[in-house]
Amino acid sequence: MIAAQYIGNKSFEIVAANERSPEADEVKIAVGYVGICGTDMHIYHGVMDQRVAPPKTIGHEMSGTIVEVGSDVKNHKVGERVVVRPLDWCGECPTCEAGYTHICQNLKFMGIDSPGAFQKHWTVKERTLHKLPATVDLKQGALIEPLSVACHDISRSRLKAGEKAVVIGGGPIGQLVALVAKSVGADVLISEVNEARREFAKNIGIESVNPLETDLEAYVSEWTGTKGADVVFEVSGVQPAIEAMTQIAGRRGRLVMVAIHSQQPKVDMFQFFWKELELLGARVYEAADFDMAIDLIASGKVDINPFISSINQLENIGQAFASMDNNPQGMKALVACNEE
Amino acid sequence: MIAAQYIGNKSFEIVAANERSPEADEVKIAVGYVGICGTDMHIYHGVMDQRVAPPKTIGHEMSGTIVEVGSDVKNHKVGERVVVRPLDWCGECPTCEAGYTHICQNLKFMGIDSPGAFQKHWTVKERTLHKLPATVDLKQGALIEPLSVACHDISRSRLKAGEKAVVIGGGPIGQLVALVAKSVGADVLISEVNEARREFAKNIGIESVNPLETDLEAYVSEWTGTKGADVVFEVSGVQPAIEAMTQIAGRRGRLVMVAIHSQQPKVDMFQFFWKELELLGARVYEAADFDMAIDLIASGKVDINPFISSINQLENIGQAFASMDNNPQGMKALVACNEE
Repeated sequence: MIAAQYIGNKSFEIVAANERSPEADEVKIAVGYVGICGTDMHIYHGVMDQRVAPPKTIGHEMSGTIVEVGSDVKNHKVGERVVVRPLDWCGECPTCEAGYTHICQNLKFMGIDSPGAFQKHWTVKERTLHKLPATVDLKQGALIEPLSVACHDISRSRLKAGEKAVVIGGGPIGQLVALVAKSVGADVLISEVNEARREFAKNIGIESVNPLETDLEAYVSEWTGTKGADVVFEVSGVQPAIEAMTQIAGRRGRLVMVAIHSQQPKVDMFQFFWKELELLGARVYEAADFDMAIDLIASGKVDINPFISSINQLENIGQAFASMDNNPQGMKALVACNEE
Repeated sequence: MIAAQYIGNKSFEIVAANERSPEADEVKIAVGYVGICGTDMHIYHGVMDQRVAPPKTIGHEMSGTIVEVGSDVKNHKVGERVVVRPLDWCGECPTCEAGYTHICQNLKFMGIDSPGAFQKHWTVKERTLHKLPATVDLKQGALIEPLSVACHDISRSRLKAGEKAVVIGGGPIGQLVALVAKSVGADVLISEVNEARREFAKNIGIESVNPLETDLEAYVSEWTGTKGADVVFEVSGVQPAIEAMTQIAGRRGRLVMVAIHSQQPKVDMFQFFWKELELLGARVYEAADFDMAIDLIASGKVDINPFISSINQLENIGQAFASMDNNPQGMKALVACNEE
């Protein structure tokens, strides 16, 4: 079979690779489609080379069909269409014992710390699998992973129907967070400086504002009848968003930290005291988030199709990555490994 | 009667004042004892003059005996020993309607925004009252308010028996937080640089470390078997504490922001993402916190007596404030307005 290997410096190599036979607790999957994630773009730019250790096959937003099962596999069979929750947890640390395997003290992320899905066949542990219902195709299936991130953010926020939520940052995850927030019955506003992304939000039925043109604090105050936002999702990773989040949140407002801030921003801690704000970090997803994401697509509550910006064949993976580089209009580029 | 008036610049004046008769929904209290709070010290130093607008009678940590009741007062009577929850909320804003009257959008703090307790008689709304049981004397009663702050912090943290909590900062509130944490069955550690305050902690049965001498992160890691603290209370208000709190908290750890940070500290937001931390702002108290504080003293679960550093007569209020100025050994100075 062939596999794509990231070899550093924005480059991939298509190589002939051996298919790995499943161990007793594993399955081999014929990969359908793999999405390119923001983290994959970071890898592409070389900033994670020390952790990734190229050459390596990356990729973790995927769908596929089981072609072989290990001897102990009980709940999945050949021919089944699945997605992989790409987390490899130890099961033994205090965090795993407390049930939070997704933030395991020894967590390995499949497709970063171990080989990923940009190949014809991927062999993974059965425990990572979620079945796809007949109403979700493999292209949509490749979007389950990022949608699960959004479901996890909503779960962490305890957002309820009738509440008002602001999403700061209208990239792929921000737009998905907005759609999931809407699906639970909340009123949603995206704050986004890029016009193309605001246009995307409009097309999927989400209101947005440009915080460079509109006074976001005044806008949210009026939108909420002076109460302030019930929930704010910080999905942008920039200092002005950190300033905005404490300004626009209402008393007892919940702030969800989705973005990865590699710098330490200055935070208005006085507002945390004054308004009894709550800040919740959110990382990847739990099994229930995958179940929710699959249900949202299967039930039609979320239309994921507008997020698919392009589809390239595995052989053209370099082109797929290049198309997403500094492209705020691109939401999700898919790489086809085995067509449906 | 006489009242003490803060007149600015670390000065008080003892003046003859009229006793105010209670309105229909008010009671007049013969003030027993009034504690000096950190906020009172800020006022004393002049930094809150714009809000306080001297001359003004301040003071809000008090106990006393009802001497007169208004015509609509139903649940309290003359001769009853009470403490005042010194919050004046509007009852009409969205926050009050949501039940969070203690962070009302129009909250007035009695003893800061309106006259306080450093006087022989104080007339207040009935809705602010909590009865003192026979087993709590008026000196102890004056400590109910700061103990309620600690109870509110514990309530916000959702601290449970068997969990491990670190309190950063061993001033009066930090020590009270530690005692309340212990009373719910948690293991507690105070991080405090001042030796006298560590000695105080030892005397009330709380373990402490000096973070300038001991590597706090390593210490907490070993103390918790690598898990990290379940809860961290930030009660110090300094940048190094903000750095420590994200380091020592375990995965899904809860951080409670008790201190008032007037500067905007740099916060390691990456740790919020990575460990799914939760930060909870905590401000003053709710009625249930006062009930809990009264019960903790009445039941003997918390021995509040060691916190009483000195007792001065109202006429000597200046001396009481001077004794607390830059005095890390002083926990709580009481001012006696009417002896028991």
